[in-house]
Amino acid sequence: MKIALRSGLPAAALLAAAALSPVTQAGESKGRPWMLEDILTVPEVNEIALSGNGRLAIYAAEIADIDAGKPRSHIRIMEVATGRTKDVLTVDTIKSLRPVPGTPHWSALLDLGEGQQLYRIDTEGMLQPLIVNPNPVPVGKADMSFPIGGGLRPGHVGILDYDWSPDGKWLWYSQLRAKPDEPRVRFDGEVTALLGRRRSSIDIEVDYLVRNPDGRTTKIMTRPSTDRVATRGGGRIVWQGDEIKFRIERRDGTLGGAFELLAWNRVSKTVRTLAKERDLLNLFILAGPRGGQLSTRGVASDRELIEASAEDRPHSYGRVAFDIGDSRSIGWKSSGDGQRVVVGTRGIDNARYGLALIDKGGVREIRADASLTRCGFDDMVRAAICVEEGMSRSPRLVRVNLDTNEIADLGPISPRHEEIAPLQAIARTFVSRDGYKVSGYIVLPRGHRAGDRHPAIIVTHGNDADDRFAEPANQWNYPVQLLAERGYVVLLLNDPSPNQSQDLREAMGAWLRGKGPPDPETVQQRLWLTGVHSFEDAVTELAAEGLIDPARVGIAGYSRGSQMVNVTVTNSKMFRAASSGDGGFLEPAGYATGRSSYDAIYGGAPLSDNIERWRRFAPSLNAGKVCAAVLQQVASASPSQIELFEALRAAGVATQISYYPGATAASDETHLFYLTSNRLFAMRENIAWFDYWLLGKRDVDAPFADHVASWDRLKKNRPDRCAGAP
Amino acid sequence: MKIALRSGLPAAALLAAAALSPVTQAGESKGRPWMLEDILTVPEVNEIALSGNGRLAIYAAEIADIDAGKPRSHIRIMEVATGRTKDVLTVDTIKSLRPVPGTPHWSALLDLGEGQQLYRIDTEGMLQPLIVNPNPVPVGKADMSFPIGGGLRPGHVGILDYDWSPDGKWLWYSQLRAKPDEPRVRFDGEVTALLGRRRSSIDIEVDYLVRNPDGRTTKIMTRPSTDRVATRGGGRIVWQGDEIKFRIERRDGTLGGAFELLAWNRVSKTVRTLAKERDLLNLFILAGPRGGQLSTRGVASDRELIEASAEDRPHSYGRVAFDIGDSRSIGWKSSGDGQRVVVGTRGIDNARYGLALIDKGGVREIRADASLTRCGFDDMVRAAICVEEGMSRSPRLVRVNLDTNEIADLGPISPRHEEIAPLQAIARTFVSRDGYKVSGYIVLPRGHRAGDRHPAIIVTHGNDADDRFAEPANQWNYPVQLLAERGYVVLLLNDPSPNQSQDLREAMGAWLRGKGPPDPETVQQRLWLTGVHSFEDAVTELAAEGLIDPARVGIAGYSRGSQMVNVTVTNSKMFRAASSGDGGFLEPAGYATGRSSYDAIYGGAPLSDNIERWRRFAPSLNAGKVCAAVLQQVASASPSQIELFEALRAAGVATQISYYPGATAASDETHLFYLTSNRLFAMRENIAWFDYWLLGKRDVDAPFADHVASWDRLKKNRPDRCAGAP
Repeated sequence: MKIALRSGLPAAALLAAAALSPVTQAGESKGRPWMLEDILTVPEVNEIALSGNGRLAIYAAEIADIDAGKPRSHIRIMEVATGRTKDVLTVDTIKSLRPVPGTPHWSALLDLGEGQQLYRIDTEGMLQPLIVNPNPVPVGKADMSFPIGGGLRPGHVGILDYDWSPDGKWLWYSQLRAKPDEPRVRFDGEVTALLGRRRSSIDIEVDYLVRNPDGRTTKIMTRPSTDRVATRGGGRIVWQGDEIKFRIERRDGTLGGAFELLAWNRVSKTVRTLAKERDLLNLFILAGPRGGQLSTRGVASDRELIEASAEDRPHSYGRVAFDIGDSRSIGWKSSGDGQRVVVGTRGIDNARYGLALIDKGGVREIRADASLTRCGFDDMVRAAICVEEGMSRSPRLVRVNLDTNEIADLGPISPRHEEIAPLQAIARTFVSRDGYKVSGYIVLPRGHRAGDRHPAIIVTHGNDADDRFAEPANQWNYPVQLLAERGYVVLLLNDPSPNQSQDLREAMGAWLRGKGPPDPETVQQRLWLTGVHSFEDAVTELAAEGLIDPARVGIAGYSRGSQMVNVTVTNSKMFRAASSGDGGFLEPAGYATGRSSYDAIYGGAPLSDNIERWRRFAPSLNAGKVCAAVLQQVASASPSQIELFEALRAAGVATQISYYPGATAASDETHLFYLTSNRLFAMRENIAWFDYWLLGKRDVDAPFADHVASWDRLKKNRPDRCAGAP
Repeated sequence: MKIALRSGLPAAALLAAAALSPVTQAGESKGRPWMLEDILTVPEVNEIALSGNGRLAIYAAEIADIDAGKPRSHIRIMEVATGRTKDVLTVDTIKSLRPVPGTPHWSALLDLGEGQQLYRIDTEGMLQPLIVNPNPVPVGKADMSFPIGGGLRPGHVGILDYDWSPDGKWLWYSQLRAKPDEPRVRFDGEVTALLGRRRSSIDIEVDYLVRNPDGRTTKIMTRPSTDRVATRGGGRIVWQGDEIKFRIERRDGTLGGAFELLAWNRVSKTVRTLAKERDLLNLFILAGPRGGQLSTRGVASDRELIEASAEDRPHSYGRVAFDIGDSRSIGWKSSGDGQRVVVGTRGIDNARYGLALIDKGGVREIRADASLTRCGFDDMVRAAICVEEGMSRSPRLVRVNLDTNEIADLGPISPRHEEIAPLQAIARTFVSRDGYKVSGYIVLPRGHRAGDRHPAIIVTHGNDADDRFAEPANQWNYPVQLLAERGYVVLLLNDPSPNQSQDLREAMGAWLRGKGPPDPETVQQRLWLTGVHSFEDAVTELAAEGLIDPARVGIAGYSRGSQMVNVTVTNSKMFRAASSGDGGFLEPAGYATGRSSYDAIYGGAPLSDNIERWRRFAPSLNAGKVCAAVLQQVASASPSQIELFEALRAAGVATQISYYPGATAASDETHLFYLTSNRLFAMRENIAWFDYWLLGKRDVDAPFADHVASWDRLKKNRPDRCAGAP
């Protein structure tokens, strides 16, 4: 892993080949073109914090490390006044970087070889352990580990999360604890839970603890592994007076879930239930300045910000043009006195992230020219240091004055990305034949001139086509920038947002609840087929404008995007090539383990009276309608993915499934690939796939170059029904 | 594991409770009643050998060891003349115990902590390593291991198998070799192969090697892990002149398989192909005295023994009343000069195992009063030492004179089993309404008197209801003897043997080939529904005779037997309770990974135009017809088993699934349970299950006694349609 990549090619050779690949040379604007390595090494700042007095900032930039074969986090401390920065430490992972109230220091969860534990970081970057759980638990998709979602990299977790009281004297933290794995006979529900097993695993519990100012620790509660708030959030909490508010999930088998908002009193040591909730889309508790919870309601231009509590009727802050509570936004922070609250926003019209400052008097929005995607705040929530980035703007640090709205630049996070001449990315909203708006961006090929007509590729992933820089959660292993360098128009297209109309929200609600109304056909229509229409209509529109060649259009998307890709190729004749990333939802093979997420779509099991619905909609059962060449790149080799591959093969469709391995045979790659060699190969494979099927190019420099020969055979053997296809 | 069993009950307490459980006291005959521990500790002699000169015998008796939590093999050496025996060694496993030709010693594969390797055993039982593979491979159903079938216990294998040339100067052996597990991207077929994955695993290759008299080693061939002859047999071979004959499998995806018989010449070091073969039911090469291969052909009373080779037309030895090549029989042995061959037989009429001695002149059968199940032979195949055992006869060693047919007793293998007063087991053949014969045994309850009427339980597993002693491969975790002690008639019933009629053989042939003729409905009828008829007809017959109470009849079977149980409960109203052991075949969930074994039965995939066939026959899709209470005890928690459980639950059927764990969470129990505590609990669970559902008894001493309360709920909630059921 260290130097050579897995094909035997040294990494440098692969990167060199990629560097040579842009079709057009930079020249129209200052700077150099994108290279594959630039996409690989886009920095992600997941953690940032100010010191309480606002003088020093600390942040961690996660950057792929080709030698290490995986990303590493570079921890940097900056003098806010001067922007002077020093690298203090490089670690595999860092989480929950926060100021320690009342001190100039920070704390964070780090893994220094003994699992993820809680450390203090002083102003020089020196570490001191604060809480160490001597029995860290193996996590991630790996043998004898506890898999938390699909996103967590294999590793060990001692402390899961923590939070300081506003005065810094109390410490909340949550620990993972492995349940005894002494072999025992299991019965009924404990056996059916093993249905989807692909590896051995362990079960865990999450303990919530509070350390009081005397140093004594009280256990508040133990949560089971089925509580997603506990395992994914560590029980995100809010300190309010003597109470600690947190949410628990009472797993009810639905996708949306059933929750309770609790408050634990640190004086009386008792718990009370504040609210019962359902179908949450995020785990934040957005406490408002009036003691309630903040949320937005209403659709389209009627969206308003409200604060609601069990006692009073909701207070409205008026109409707003943003959503709050988005997990990609900045989140939530309250001033020490609770009078001032700042929440992260996502603009409805421009898909840009910002801030909203709320006090009892009202709400004030702070927006930059691009997105503010991460912020650290001072104690009083008067100053922030944030990451500013955009579709064509590489991430920089900025200082934000929350009183004056002034934003001052503090310099780049990644100098190498400043060297690149930005590609032209045009924000655009399309309105489909169904009347729904879809937002997105048109990324123009380097050197595009008015009148040029290009091949095009749609890249889609839910509503991640927003104003961020080469965002991996949006473009996955689809090297958008390199495709644009090589002459493609890339359309970054979102789903029609459910917040724009009541009927889309109702369909989404049915999906989350696991049952309608509306009926299954309507759910299929509104959550998937409407999206297909919007893709087709966008292509038709841009073809009519002369920008793209409708005979050379591809589509790519992972996860939610792979659902859209799979439904698109089975319902549209417009796409010649497709790349579907680590998906497989909607297939019969997924029903048994994902019942609650399927019932609203199909009405019930495939081998029931609902079979005709499955036959009409499930991608694998409609393989015979596909003419696009379909590549699946997967991290899980799930039964659904294999089912689709085999159905496409059997129907004569040109198809390939590529399974990207974990760091060892005992662990898996994550849903969003993290292993450097996998990311490189998968990006190269997508370039080769689209070049072959859209442009007829045979890229013999690509990894697995021998595949071109097998693609020739697939092409030759395609069924007659596709002879007239693009 | 060492002292306490997994429920927390000490093993001794559980056994004590079971010991008290016989309903009737011994008294009618000499000896004591059966206890649960007796079933657990029935000895299995898998390995036995004579020294070349016939003076000493060595054998290994595998006996469950409650302290160790698993079986251990006790290696004993006996003076044949006196029967004097000494225990020389106790090991976890021993395999392929054979004389070293030209010496007084033996050799065997033993695992002494460094994986399974080849050792010499001298006449005092001292060991000396002969071949040690320094890189033994982890095998069995365990993380990062190579799973060989479902039967191999987790462990490590260096040397897989071996054989000495008749002069003892050459040594054939096969080694496992792990393929490199460096992570790599996998494509297409390599991905679909992961469909059924339940744990991480590794892939291996098998190397065939020959050591010549000079000590030099030549590699003959490398076989892939898909060659079942290689992985399960290690390439069983026959020495003939300068040639070594062995069989390879060219995996063609069918259940029956495609094979080639090869010969490697040790002088020229070349390989030639002797024959291409299909649909083999066993892996033995049965070389005859005329240079061909022995087999039986013809159905029913027309069965004849032939010797066939590629060159000549088959030679017939005339009609015989036995089958050869059965993997449960003694196997095959040739005299040093190849003139005399002995093969193991299985009687067609009496399901008893014996020997047949074959020379160019003809065939002579040697049969004892019970079965001869294992033998060791001297060099000239004139004397043998064998294990003799029967349905009511605990295993003893006997000396067999192959010239005179004389059989002399050498004493018991397990003195504790001699103390038990034998239960009365009556061999009986039933003829069903379809005209097929089924053989089996009626085990009468202790103290049965003419005119008594009893509850009854059928125990079925293919054709394993034969003349052997408490055979685990037949009775699995169904404690037949204890059920008889507690007042049940136990019917040990076989499938109708396919060898009795051409139409059954054709159906079997279609199953093995993966396609008919006959058509799928006929295959279902002949291989499953005919068996259901035979069960019903046997019950009706014995009820008419007054022996059993038709309102209190249960059925139990594992593996093939579980297929019969599952088809029976969905097609018959005669059974009030059922126990289905580690099965699940015939369910839709199994199709994707077992296509070739399903196509002849259903015509194709469940989600295809064949769906109506699945709906009519698959047990889970007919759950609504079941009124019997169905217990599944499983070692694998496979999707098919879970599918059946969930369907039965959804249909209101009283059902439970119990998943028995491996020795650690990183490994599985084997198909035939080997872990002592699992075997004990599973047997007790079956007693409690049948006592509850057939007799209405609530066994509060049983393990998991709290289950009785949940069974009460299941009983109360049974659907109305079953109100009139037995």
